[in-house]
Amino acid sequence: MAKLWQKSGTKTHPLVTKYIISKDCAQDKLLLKYDILASIAHAKMLAHVGLISKKEAFALVRTLKEIFLLDKKGQFALKQEDEDCHTAIENYLVEKIGDIGKKIHMGRSRNDQVLTALRLYSKEKLQEVQKQVLETAKTILNFAQQHEFVPMPGYTHTQQAMPSSVGQWAGAFVESLLDDVKLLEAAYELNDQNPLGSAAGFGTSLPIDREYTTKKLGFKKLQLNTLYCQNSRGKIESFVVSALFQVMMTLGKIANDMVWFTSTEFSFFNVNKSLATGSSIMPQKQNLDIMEVLRANVHVVMSCQTQIQSVSLNLLSGYNKDLKITKKPLLEAFLIVLESLSIIKLLFSNIIPNLEKLEHAMHPEIFATDQVNRLAQEGIPFRDAYKKTANVLNKIKPPNVIENLKSKKHLGAPGNLNLQYYKNLIKRV
Amino acid sequence: MAKLWQKSGTKTHPLVTKYIISKDCAQDKLLLKYDILASIAHAKMLAHVGLISKKEAFALVRTLKEIFLLDKKGQFALKQEDEDCHTAIENYLVEKIGDIGKKIHMGRSRNDQVLTALRLYSKEKLQEVQKQVLETAKTILNFAQQHEFVPMPGYTHTQQAMPSSVGQWAGAFVESLLDDVKLLEAAYELNDQNPLGSAAGFGTSLPIDREYTTKKLGFKKLQLNTLYCQNSRGKIESFVVSALFQVMMTLGKIANDMVWFTSTEFSFFNVNKSLATGSSIMPQKQNLDIMEVLRANVHVVMSCQTQIQSVSLNLLSGYNKDLKITKKPLLEAFLIVLESLSIIKLLFSNIIPNLEKLEHAMHPEIFATDQVNRLAQEGIPFRDAYKKTANVLNKIKPPNVIENLKSKKHLGAPGNLNLQYYKNLIKRV
Amino acid sequence: MAKLWQKSGTKTHPLVTKYIISKDCAQDKLLLKYDILASIAHAKMLAHVGLISKKEAFALVRTLKEIFLLDKKGQFALKQEDEDCHTAIENYLVEKIGDIGKKIHMGRSRNDQVLTALRLYSKEKLQEVQKQVLETAKTILNFAQQHEFVPMPGYTHTQQAMPSSVGQWAGAFVESLLDDVKLLEAAYELNDQNPLGSAAGFGTSLPIDREYTTKKLGFKKLQLNTLYCQNSRGKIESFVVSALFQVMMTLGKIANDMVWFTSTEFSFFNVNKSLATGSSIMPQKQNLDIMEVLRANVHVVMSCQTQIQSVSLNLLSGYNKDLKITKKPLLEAFLIVLESLSIIKLLFSNIIPNLEKLEHAMHPEIFATDQVNRLAQEGIPFRDAYKKTANVLNKIKPPNVIENLKSKKHLGAPGNLNLQYYKNLIKRV
Amino acid sequence: MAKLWQKSGTKTHPLVTKYIISKDCAQDKLLLKYDILASIAHAKMLAHVGLISKKEAFALVRTLKEIFLLDKKGQFALKQEDEDCHTAIENYLVEKIGDIGKKIHMGRSRNDQVLTALRLYSKEKLQEVQKQVLETAKTILNFAQQHEFVPMPGYTHTQQAMPSSVGQWAGAFVESLLDDVKLLEAAYELNDQNPLGSAAGFGTSLPIDREYTTKKLGFKKLQLNTLYCQNSRGKIESFVVSALFQVMMTLGKIANDMVWFTSTEFSFFNVNKSLATGSSIMPQKQNLDIMEVLRANVHVVMSCQTQIQSVSLNLLSGYNKDLKITKKPLLEAFLIVLESLSIIKLLFSNIIPNLEKLEHAMHPEIFATDQVNRLAQEGIPFRDAYKKTANVLNKIKPPNVIENLKSKKHLGAPGNLNLQYYKNLIKRV
Repeated sequence: MAKLWQKSGTKTHPLVTKYIISKDCAQDKLLLKYDILASIAHAKMLAHVGLISKKEAFALVRTLKEIFLLDKKGQFALKQEDEDCHTAIENYLVEKIGDIGKKIHMGRSRNDQVLTALRLYSKEKLQEVQKQVLETAKTILNFAQQHEFVPMPGYTHTQQAMPSSVGQWAGAFVESLLDDVKLLEAAYELNDQNPLGSAAGFGTSLPIDREYTTKKLGFKKLQLNTLYCQNSRGKIESFVVSALFQVMMTLGKIANDMVWFTSTEFSFFNVNKSLATGSSIMPQKQNLDIMEVLRANVHVVMSCQTQIQSVSLNLLSGYNKDLKITKKPLLEAFLIVLESLSIIKLLFSNIIPNLEKLEHAMHPEIFATDQVNRLAQEGIPFRDAYKKTANVLNKIKPPNVIENLKSKKHLGAPGNLNLQYYKNLIKRV
Repeated sequence: MAKLWQKSGTKTHPLVTKYIISKDCAQDKLLLKYDILASIAHAKMLAHVGLISKKEAFALVRTLKEIFLLDKKGQFALKQEDEDCHTAIENYLVEKIGDIGKKIHMGRSRNDQVLTALRLYSKEKLQEVQKQVLETAKTILNFAQQHEFVPMPGYTHTQQAMPSSVGQWAGAFVESLLDDVKLLEAAYELNDQNPLGSAAGFGTSLPIDREYTTKKLGFKKLQLNTLYCQNSRGKIESFVVSALFQVMMTLGKIANDMVWFTSTEFSFFNVNKSLATGSSIMPQKQNLDIMEVLRANVHVVMSCQTQIQSVSLNLLSGYNKDLKITKKPLLEAFLIVLESLSIIKLLFSNIIPNLEKLEHAMHPEIFATDQVNRLAQEGIPFRDAYKKTANVLNKIKPPNVIENLKSKKHLGAPGNLNLQYYKNLIKRV
Repeated sequence: MAKLWQKSGTKTHPLVTKYIISKDCAQDKLLLKYDILASIAHAKMLAHVGLISKKEAFALVRTLKEIFLLDKKGQFALKQEDEDCHTAIENYLVEKIGDIGKKIHMGRSRNDQVLTALRLYSKEKLQEVQKQVLETAKTILNFAQQHEFVPMPGYTHTQQAMPSSVGQWAGAFVESLLDDVKLLEAAYELNDQNPLGSAAGFGTSLPIDREYTTKKLGFKKLQLNTLYCQNSRGKIESFVVSALFQVMMTLGKIANDMVWFTSTEFSFFNVNKSLATGSSIMPQKQNLDIMEVLRANVHVVMSCQTQIQSVSLNLLSGYNKDLKITKKPLLEAFLIVLESLSIIKLLFSNIIPNLEKLEHAMHPEIFATDQVNRLAQEGIPFRDAYKKTANVLNKIKPPNVIENLKSKKHLGAPGNLNLQYYKNLIKRV
Repeated sequence: MAKLWQKSGTKTHPLVTKYIISKDCAQDKLLLKYDILASIAHAKMLAHVGLISKKEAFALVRTLKEIFLLDKKGQFALKQEDEDCHTAIENYLVEKIGDIGKKIHMGRSRNDQVLTALRLYSKEKLQEVQKQVLETAKTILNFAQQHEFVPMPGYTHTQQAMPSSVGQWAGAFVESLLDDVKLLEAAYELNDQNPLGSAAGFGTSLPIDREYTTKKLGFKKLQLNTLYCQNSRGKIESFVVSALFQVMMTLGKIANDMVWFTSTEFSFFNVNKSLATGSSIMPQKQNLDIMEVLRANVHVVMSCQTQIQSVSLNLLSGYNKDLKITKKPLLEAFLIVLESLSIIKLLFSNIIPNLEKLEHAMHPEIFATDQVNRLAQEGIPFRDAYKKTANVLNKIKPPNVIENLKSKKHLGAPGNLNLQYYKNLIKRV
């Protein structure tokens, strides 16, 4: 079937089609479901305001649901001639119900159609990410509780600094993920506004009811100014990906730590062999590829974010085709974040602290600061206590580490991680 | 005076000092005030838990306030030997009150000290940005109301698309800024947690009271896990700058539109000459440099954001010196956003729509879609109405534009911009 | 078949496989050809140094050529179990020629295998890009010569500045592309070094001959230090993409100019309708989507570049799995650049300057600087002449534009574009 | 004094001045010298073609040299009223030699003036960087030769992989830097073209001689098309910084390796204490901050690069003020690269391999691949030898490491690093 805008007598050059159209299909496949949902709401609204009859609306909705089911079964093929999923839907409607199908596009444009589909898609995916983040946090929290007082060196500048614990290390990620949840919520709220009915960006002369579709589609509010609807394309997506990137920052820190902590020199954790991969020539290798790939994927999501941002700049108000390019990095970012979360959950169910290694890892000097503090508590001015200790570093006698950890009792210190607090937070969300 | 960690007998190579230390001064100057506030709270807490006497606390607070006043008058010089503002403060205290000064650093480290100062700084600046965003929104809203029905072509693909208005164009930015306010709030909340007492990242063996300083400093909550405090360095800053970048995206769209809309070919606005600059050889030139610089500054803030993000990746848990590099882009982003907001406010108080140009700008074909809609309302299926109109484009008779605009009555369309809605929103914030 | 490193008794978790392995296939498909070429050279080298017999080498080469032909016909399927194209090749060899196939991996590793394939791939693609750049330059040059003295306003700050010509506008891109050719050459030379035999990064205890494969594969030189071979992964690719990005910068400037110059307000060029696309609701729209997509693609290639760069940082010397992620952006960048070049060639064969519009576009003040210069030549100090002219801007009488253009005779000015110079340069390359 | 374009009766709004003008001074200070050199050449050219008298040229040159000397002594102040260094120069000339000074700007514009100054600046700095790169390479090469056969584990996936040496590790960086030199040359050549006389981008009606200034200023060639001169702003700078970034990639790998190799767990190198810094609370800390800051600076230079690139996109042909923003990241990148090179030179003169640690670092399994190769050489198919060895990993007996290293004799392997090759290359440059 033809493109929606094809006029008789003109033919698009095949290179043009190839350059701008043909690569849409795979992405549009992911958006099809959401476009159908929006189209159903749109058809009902058209009947609601009297632009089409109830019977016509019924036929449209029924046929749209057919597409939905076909798509679910993987039987709704997007053809290259269809240009995009929006066109494929209209073409299918026309094929099946003739003139009624030709009415579906009243009072909307592809510009607001794709915006709406993207918003609905992002809403669903953000909820999914949030759920996965919470589940991942729970898994890590269990791990932290199980190994709360297993000693582990604490590092600054990648140098042994002060005694810490596996519980503190893991707990840090739990708190980080719980912060991320709130950023996802902020992104969710920004995205939760209905652009449908903004048409090409300047509304329509037809008497549509935008509040009706807002309610039907479950949007929290209407995105009012129709030009802003289009101007926010790229902008809202970029903020969504910035929030996703925050999750990746948390996961990436775990990944990078794991790469190092499972190296020969550290050996802090034993990893289930089913998580490792090998080398084509070195039979001894047990590589934690998943952590390296995850670490790299943090950069990929960062680059998805800046690609969306950068493409969206220096463009005139209103829709510009450039913005279509922002679809791919958005979808890619969601995919990576969801997969990466499942990998981290898998990880924490498959690693065990290597107690022997961890116990012997701490260099006596790691307790120097505790010594300084003891002197300070005895009344020696802190800076003097510091200098005094600096001169007798080689005389520091390592204490019982677990007792040392437990003696640090202020909030958030290894002896008072207050892990229960996170448990309550996770429940509450 | 010496660096805090300087031991007798060692000397730092001057190239080392130059490479890592000396460039801090200008930035640290901006943070000094916040470091003093945090130090005062810290000193009071030390007395509160009995680690120092009330009298010692009093001396510390008094001397810290001295520095505050000196700094305010521009009389507290940061010397290169001081390494950073944290050191300068301790050195001053020791000089003035001797052994008492040497006690200020009990139960904290420079790692949490700088974190705390940055958080306090960001809190204040985010509030300032938010206030400026609202004032800018108000200025643009006035402009929109004043010119609500001044016709202006609406563009898609940078081509004339459908009739629009100056009111719609300006209103779009108001709504965009109001969305940005919420993102700033999300960033504010993320940043509003107290890292003080996390020390080097692993707490301290001293019995400090972190809830006390949380209250004293006005933080909404305590950042619990002391390792997470350090792990969130760079992460929180990057999210703050992502939110600032959203503001810049809105302003940048205005700027880019203005560059084009004030070009010879468009001439949509007359700009007060005090806003333009000239050329060294072309006497006729009236350049709107401020809009070009603003447009470029959007990219600068984007790059501040990605610099912070990228520097923070692939680092071991706990503080790493790399993170110090994230200070500069954070401070730069705040500076640019604040200045850019004031420029946009200035702009909208100094431009006037060029009514004559705007009236004649619209090409008759811009009304084609209205014609399609009329046919559709008469019962011709939309897609057929579209094709029909496509064949008679040269026969379209332009209507009275203002009537045309006013006839588009659904929410957000040029005839129903509902500008009052923003007015109420701005008041409520 | 199994992965190369699979040991009996261990099973990789399916999530692990999915996360790190399964997405390779499409990319590896593109690299297969180059891997086969490298494997043939490697097999011959093994025989040359006596590690395998001539007969074995013959069998290996013959079977590798089989794969080559199968792949050419699209009949060599990469299975997910094969992990990557390198494994697929070895598995096929073993299946066909048993023990001999198991010998192919002597003296190499997948690490140098993929490096070599990427280098060979990049060499071929860089040559293709360079050829396309020159052909594009030739097409634009023809266009410039054809319209050498067609007047066109020259812009600074997006404001009319001084008279210029279509020839000057188009000629600027020719010169830009010719500069780009040299950058592609620099990237080609950097990439033209043989990493084969570096194995996992530390060479091999087998007596391989790396100079032999260097010659066989047509590399200009051997990449000596085997660790550097691995350390340069990501680094060399990033420079290749930086060079590709330079080409995109040139093309992107054309694209952005075209978006504006074909807008209603400028209308400087008439574009063949086969290059435009339409709107789903506005029947009058003729959008130059190809230029918008190209403009966006500049940002995509920029993001490919920074993704490769950023992924490659903060990694320990030697191969890290993170680097595998750099394959995709490299391949994507090549694809985009090649397609974009063909679009620009298509463009310049399908646009015609709109003489009427161009003639009337210039505002009289655009000639003010010429007036200043006239006064300056009469002896009035330039700065005074400038001020004098500034006061009589409204009295400037536009000259005959073509004469005006031709009167500017210094090298590179509209009257002396010296287009023949480019013609000679293009021939010479 | 006034701005060059200031007309009587208009006054620029102070916020405008602040936003676009006042931040130039520091950067322009660095460019002043080059602007003077270009102005001298320009003045001589004006006399050469008869636009001014020889006497006038003499006065101009003499006064320009005065500024040069004043600037050298730090006595030529750039005032905010001067807008930029270009204006400051003209204002000084007018003040000193009256009407003659007012003639300096004939046949040029600030647009080509700043371009020329930037090119001259970049030429000088690129040569300086290249020289420093070679000296750094020499220092590292000495280090590599000194410790050629000191054993050191070789890593892949951050896991011990195969035996390597300090010589191989250091040699890898030498080869990397020598590759970088060639990229700097490519950038140098691209930058080595004269834009002077392109004026505002469209040449001038005055009979200037651009080949004369090309020769006088020592440019390799003239940048012909005057519009291309302006279009290449940002483009050429971005390529220069891409080349600088390649140097930073090499240095950053050294830095990241050093951070890890000097950690407690590795302790591969002893570092002179004058290179380390300490902690404010942990008296034992010896942090290698310089390596962390350098590692972060790699990201800063990356961000300078993408900032220049991103600012330069989506701009109309011809000069746009946005491009002025690219000055700062260009100058910053040069500064960082030069300082970082001196830090790396300092490093390699102040570290000593920790022989004891290095000797004991290798895990026996690191020799597994050598065992596989032995079996393969005995005729067992490689893949079978691999599997066989995989089953007896715990029985591997570590050989004499130095003999093992020396036995790997192919080009680039630890036993045949061919370090002399680099020595010859360095000499030749």
